[in-house]
Amino acid sequence: MDKKWVYMFSEGNADQRNLLGGKGANLAEMTNIGLPVPQGFTVSTEACLDYINKDNELTEEMVEQIEEGMKKLNDITGKKFGDEENPLLVSVRSGARVSMPGMMDTILNLGLNDTTVEALSKKSENPRFAWDSYRRFIQMFGDVVQEIDKNKFEAVLDEIKEREGYNYDTELTVDDLKEVVGRYKEIVKEETGEEFPTEPKDQLLKAVEAVFRSWNNPRAIVYRNLNEIPHDYGTAVNVQSMVFGNMGDNSGTGVAFTRNPATGENKLYGEYLINAQGEDVVAGVRTPEPIARLEQDMPEVYKQFAETAHILEDHYGDMQDMEFTIDDGKLYMLQTRNGKRTAPAALQIAVDMVNEGKISKEEAITRIEAKALDQLLHPAFDEESLEEGVVIAEGLAASPGAGTGKIYFTAEDAIAAAENGEDVILVRKETSPEDIEGMHASNGILTSRGGMTSHAAVVARGMGTCCVAGVEDIVVDEDNKKLTAGGKTYTEGDYISIDGSTGKVYEGSIKTVPPELSGNFATIMEWADEIRNLDIRTNADSPRDAKQALDFGAEGIGLTRTEHMFFDEDRIPAVRRMILSPDRETREKYLADLLPMQKEDFKGMYEVMREKPITIRLLDPPLHEFLPTEEEDIEALAEDMDMSVEEMKANIDSLKEFNPMLGHRGVRLAVTYPEIAAMQTRAIMEAAIEVAEETGADIVPEIMIPLVGMKEEIKDVKKTIVETIEKVKEEKNSDIDYEVGTMIEIPRAAVLADQIAEEAEFFSFGTNDLTQMTFGYSRDDAGKFINEYKEKGFYQVDPFASIDQEGVGKLVENAVKLGHQTRPDMKMGVCGEHGGEPNSIKFFDKVGLDYVSCSPFRVPIARLAAAQAAVENKED
Amino acid sequence: MDKKWVYMFSEGNADQRNLLGGKGANLAEMTNIGLPVPQGFTVSTEACLDYINKDNELTEEMVEQIEEGMKKLNDITGKKFGDEENPLLVSVRSGARVSMPGMMDTILNLGLNDTTVEALSKKSENPRFAWDSYRRFIQMFGDVVQEIDKNKFEAVLDEIKEREGYNYDTELTVDDLKEVVGRYKEIVKEETGEEFPTEPKDQLLKAVEAVFRSWNNPRAIVYRNLNEIPHDYGTAVNVQSMVFGNMGDNSGTGVAFTRNPATGENKLYGEYLINAQGEDVVAGVRTPEPIARLEQDMPEVYKQFAETAHILEDHYGDMQDMEFTIDDGKLYMLQTRNGKRTAPAALQIAVDMVNEGKISKEEAITRIEAKALDQLLHPAFDEESLEEGVVIAEGLAASPGAGTGKIYFTAEDAIAAAENGEDVILVRKETSPEDIEGMHASNGILTSRGGMTSHAAVVARGMGTCCVAGVEDIVVDEDNKKLTAGGKTYTEGDYISIDGSTGKVYEGSIKTVPPELSGNFATIMEWADEIRNLDIRTNADSPRDAKQALDFGAEGIGLTRTEHMFFDEDRIPAVRRMILSPDRETREKYLADLLPMQKEDFKGMYEVMREKPITIRLLDPPLHEFLPTEEEDIEALAEDMDMSVEEMKANIDSLKEFNPMLGHRGVRLAVTYPEIAAMQTRAIMEAAIEVAEETGADIVPEIMIPLVGMKEEIKDVKKTIVETIEKVKEEKNSDIDYEVGTMIEIPRAAVLADQIAEEAEFFSFGTNDLTQMTFGYSRDDAGKFINEYKEKGFYQVDPFASIDQEGVGKLVENAVKLGHQTRPDMKMGVCGEHGGEPNSIKFFDKVGLDYVSCSPFRVPIARLAAAQAAVENKED
Repeated sequence: MDKKWVYMFSEGNADQRNLLGGKGANLAEMTNIGLPVPQGFTVSTEACLDYINKDNELTEEMVEQIEEGMKKLNDITGKKFGDEENPLLVSVRSGARVSMPGMMDTILNLGLNDTTVEALSKKSENPRFAWDSYRRFIQMFGDVVQEIDKNKFEAVLDEIKEREGYNYDTELTVDDLKEVVGRYKEIVKEETGEEFPTEPKDQLLKAVEAVFRSWNNPRAIVYRNLNEIPHDYGTAVNVQSMVFGNMGDNSGTGVAFTRNPATGENKLYGEYLINAQGEDVVAGVRTPEPIARLEQDMPEVYKQFAETAHILEDHYGDMQDMEFTIDDGKLYMLQTRNGKRTAPAALQIAVDMVNEGKISKEEAITRIEAKALDQLLHPAFDEESLEEGVVIAEGLAASPGAGTGKIYFTAEDAIAAAENGEDVILVRKETSPEDIEGMHASNGILTSRGGMTSHAAVVARGMGTCCVAGVEDIVVDEDNKKLTAGGKTYTEGDYISIDGSTGKVYEGSIKTVPPELSGNFATIMEWADEIRNLDIRTNADSPRDAKQALDFGAEGIGLTRTEHMFFDEDRIPAVRRMILSPDRETREKYLADLLPMQKEDFKGMYEVMREKPITIRLLDPPLHEFLPTEEEDIEALAEDMDMSVEEMKANIDSLKEFNPMLGHRGVRLAVTYPEIAAMQTRAIMEAAIEVAEETGADIVPEIMIPLVGMKEEIKDVKKTIVETIEKVKEEKNSDIDYEVGTMIEIPRAAVLADQIAEEAEFFSFGTNDLTQMTFGYSRDDAGKFINEYKEKGFYQVDPFASIDQEGVGKLVENAVKLGHQTRPDMKMGVCGEHGGEPNSIKFFDKVGLDYVSCSPFRVPIARLAAAQAAVENKED
Repeated sequence: MDKKWVYMFSEGNADQRNLLGGKGANLAEMTNIGLPVPQGFTVSTEACLDYINKDNELTEEMVEQIEEGMKKLNDITGKKFGDEENPLLVSVRSGARVSMPGMMDTILNLGLNDTTVEALSKKSENPRFAWDSYRRFIQMFGDVVQEIDKNKFEAVLDEIKEREGYNYDTELTVDDLKEVVGRYKEIVKEETGEEFPTEPKDQLLKAVEAVFRSWNNPRAIVYRNLNEIPHDYGTAVNVQSMVFGNMGDNSGTGVAFTRNPATGENKLYGEYLINAQGEDVVAGVRTPEPIARLEQDMPEVYKQFAETAHILEDHYGDMQDMEFTIDDGKLYMLQTRNGKRTAPAALQIAVDMVNEGKISKEEAITRIEAKALDQLLHPAFDEESLEEGVVIAEGLAASPGAGTGKIYFTAEDAIAAAENGEDVILVRKETSPEDIEGMHASNGILTSRGGMTSHAAVVARGMGTCCVAGVEDIVVDEDNKKLTAGGKTYTEGDYISIDGSTGKVYEGSIKTVPPELSGNFATIMEWADEIRNLDIRTNADSPRDAKQALDFGAEGIGLTRTEHMFFDEDRIPAVRRMILSPDRETREKYLADLLPMQKEDFKGMYEVMREKPITIRLLDPPLHEFLPTEEEDIEALAEDMDMSVEEMKANIDSLKEFNPMLGHRGVRLAVTYPEIAAMQTRAIMEAAIEVAEETGADIVPEIMIPLVGMKEEIKDVKKTIVETIEKVKEEKNSDIDYEVGTMIEIPRAAVLADQIAEEAEFFSFGTNDLTQMTFGYSRDDAGKFINEYKEKGFYQVDPFASIDQEGVGKLVENAVKLGHQTRPDMKMGVCGEHGGEPNSIKFFDKVGLDYVSCSPFRVPIARLAAAQAAVENKED
């Protein structure tokens, strides 16, 4: 039997959105539950993929099935496509699995030509309506199928209106419209070299093909890349018999939501226009009326519509976004779908619907897009103030939230200004670890270079400070403390405002409003916590971050990086002396200087977290990262260490690496300089024991070794750690418990996780590095080609934003299995940026991790996403 | 039942070398076939591992079994351990699975003390013998068990000899020896704080423990690392009843080979000493007699020994290395093992034994160590001339062979001197691609920096030129054209000689002898070719290398790197202009300049190889590698390209990368600059078509895309390649076949090889890069820690020398399976350095690759190793 490419509405249902697209599936569903839907059929998404795979060719089989569908539609409507007396007209619309702007949208009135327009005119007894429908059809077809600049059509209308002195299109007479049609056809001939197609079947097939082709137009590809929609979904095409809202004053068209999509209020919300077709509502030529007015204008229709809205909301169990048309007093539903809503509305609706008994808590938490929570956690621009904002540049939305303040160009200036009580936006070409304090002091961070994973972006997200990064159209002149954007120069102290959720940079100061975290937000979080399996930890290097994360509901710390502590201004001299020590003895001396500082760091962390677990990672980056690069700093250090500048430079040079990512770092440092690992271990254990004694908390330190690739490495370093711990325990007369584990971030460790687990007591997947090594990319260098890869549609998802499930994920899944073979009860988590990304979280739940760890501001998102993952993975 | 730790010789056999060690298994085997062996027992290797795992403790169970063994030995010998009248004495020796210097070796005469020495004296009627045995025992026990500096013992002997005016030990009287014993015991007490152990059982257990401990002494660990012997083999201990070669003139001891180990000649070869114990033969105090003399001295014993030698060689089917003792006219065999031999001897013996009908061709080829062939393929120093050589420095044996010549410090100078007919040794701090011509012109290459995988080492091995790299104790002053070694300075034109097989650097000129590749070598190669499954290809970038490899038996080229061609002096300007082109159009113009040159390169290759396959890899390294780094070159290029020097520097800077290994290279270049891939494809195809026409050869070009990690990448680039090829075919009116394949060198590609295989028509595993990414090492930077890893025994093998079978190999094995799932007949090979390494080759044969590709001078090794792999994998 031939493959089925075409489905009548009566043949489908709402579960078939993959095959029929969202619109087609819902039209079928509404048909099934007996609602008034103009009938039609759907050409499937599979047909679209087949068309693309065959280099844009509709197969004969497909054409036959479409013609068969038209015949059935003739029978259903009692009209006939192309008939000279009672012609059937149809609309043609795209409809993908998920709503997706950028593709070809709608063609109405298809089937009209010089003959059928006369029949329509006669049958409707409304020649003006018929000719207006005809000229609209040619205009839409010319625009979207034939790709003719639509201004060419508008120009004709404008010219006639000006000539005749009309203000509105509605003043055009039948003769005017006939002239318009004639001139439109001339435009088509000029632009395409061919006559406007008069054969309805020909019109239909061309329209179907145009929809299929539009799946791969550049805007659509960009949209899919931005929204992580796979490129192999394809779109369906819906062919539907026309109903007319423009038949007179007992006709009309409108859109409405079953609840308020901005606030969530449980009340019909929407608008409509009398005597209009769909496009008029959007076009904004006439101002639509609020939906409530319909009750006065057409009480019967309103009643029927309100009932239909109830039926649909109950049926789908979610707030609906509906399109409808009233054709000569009769209501028709043209579309329904789950309505988009703001984050506050999403919370309100979810909570309300549970309280109304319409949905369960499990369903409620799946109704809220986890990522959307982000906008609730940060300050936002006041809507009204924002309207007056002037955008001067646009970059990457690197860390969400809105910030306003005076611009400063160095971390020092930013700190000084903030101490003066000023609001600060820190502006840098790019940031480096030395800028961290300045970043902390600022309301927002703006950089002209760097991507979503640049230092500025990563650190800002960690801090919850808004950041716009990689704004390539501004020029930052750090030396002269000024920036140029859009031809205008801004100097130190000038106000700007940045929106880290959109990437926009505004001139001047814009008012911000603080986040609101109680009420519905708290309720939803509580439900999420009841449902989820994954624990949620946070990545935090300071008591301040730890505190923030606790407020957001973190249950522990999955990653404390010890190197950030090393960059502190007070310590970096000692760190550098330690690194450049000529021998172990000298190094141990300088390490002894660092010990009390590190210990204080860890005490601070334990004081905040108490019994909640903290995984502390031993020193990870290559040592040269800590060394000075500026001439004056080198000179100062040389003097400080009693060396000549040449010696110092040679020393620094000898630590340089060709590929630092793959160099002397992580566990390799701990193997070659066990004294560093010993110092850090001592600092951790002394801190834990002291805080445990002071507070009575039962603290179990988790010491994590980074970058392990071989069992032998962890075995060697574990020996250093355990020996140090046993010494500390004896000195302190303590019987504290502890765990020693490892990051899984080297492909070899993932492949041989069963061996690694013989030594490691826990695993923490470092999916950032694992992604880099598995792909063979350096994130810092990938910018040169990765954007081109995205544009070409190579990625289903950006592997640094959401874990590459089939490649990197396969290694993770396999490592989980192997690790559990060796230690069935082993605790496993993830501590890369993926730990806060909903799709990744779903994957981590599925492969059986115990926790995810993310930056503090992602904790609520992770809590919700983990609950959603639990629900979805249970269903699978 | 208790585990069995102790085996009497009569309980074992030759197949149990893993359990009993080589020595123990062979003693058991000789016992079984009825040869005269002093009886004893073996404590197993498992016992050693158990001892080490229990933190150096002999379990009670083990002690009981050892005592049980001694009781049985008492019964067998009719003597009694520790008995006051007829004491049993034993020797204690280590014996691992493979012969392994560095461990504790031998203790003789164990069981002697002040009482038993008297019994021995009486029983042997030879007090001098008894007391000499006693003092030897204390000395050996003190040295190896108690770790007392043996010079302390020697000093006593020397003092007494001087005092008494003796020349030889044999002049010592019984009283002298008693004095020696007394003073030895004092030394022991002084050094250990305890009396010398008088209890024989105590002596025995201490000796056993010392052997076990010696498995992990530093020398043993280093030896295992150097020889890629796993650290978890453990050693066995052999306890054997003593026989005495020092009982008088009808006693003696010796070692002999069944054939000549230097030449392979089929004639007993060895030496012996009358009236001596084993150590005297080695000590060199008396000059031993050649074994043939024994026929005159003791004709009956000689006859028995010659027969025994025959029996053993026939039994083991290989040349034997034997130790024997004659105790009062009676022959005892103390050891037999397969004899070590030189490479020429190995060939001779293998060929002879096949001709004698003793072994099959399959067995013959397994008798030759593949690596050892290397010494036959290169010039070597003339033995006699070498004796006068003065070593002035030592570095890494980076590329085998011997070379002598005048030193030059730049590639240009080397080329000029070679053109003048001089022998040249090129001396550099380190080499770079610009030095390649100079390296070609030289007899040898010496560098003061870089490891076994530095540019100099890799390129020299590829060329077959000898190289000593990383000679850290010389100072190379390139500017002043001199080098300093051992406090002496050598200037341009001075002669030195280097041995790339030992890493030694000699002063002056030393005569070399050319390799000999006919005769036995050719016979063995022919047999290997009959037996092996793997094809052997070579890595070659020039017709010269290709020719060399063909002479060595290569069956194709597995890797032609196109970038080496780019570095040619004539081309690099065009290459640089191409790279720095501001747009595609300009770049295409410069690429057109390069096209005829690349085409000529490929024509040269095809003219040599004809129908034999050549896999050509598209451009791989990051583009910045081709750009100038010296100020003057930058200035010249700026002028050439009509840019300011600042612009040029900014341009060069913008191409720099943090981690070039993980940067914009390989397929990523081909995706972003398809015009480069198109030019290279065109050059390949035009060359192939033209050579096919000129020669009538049926050429099928293989175009290889490097660094692929995603199916989408290869799909995209393949499109460029195929379009170009179709154009060329049309232009040339050709219907040539071709294949497009990929390297598998990114972990993700290995994990998703089934997907990659949908696009790739062949796989070539790039195990160099795959090893780097799987371990997360950059080879260039790993030096800082990798040596420490080796010293600590982390590696079973150096993963860059021999493939890491359990980690990287697991990815390879899996990728082979996945690739074959998609394309069952897919051709797969390997083209990294591992392709010429015997253990790796065995692995590649096992996982089902079709070919290995290695540098030309490794081809004979690979042919032999592949045959050995076929035999061994068939057995498995």
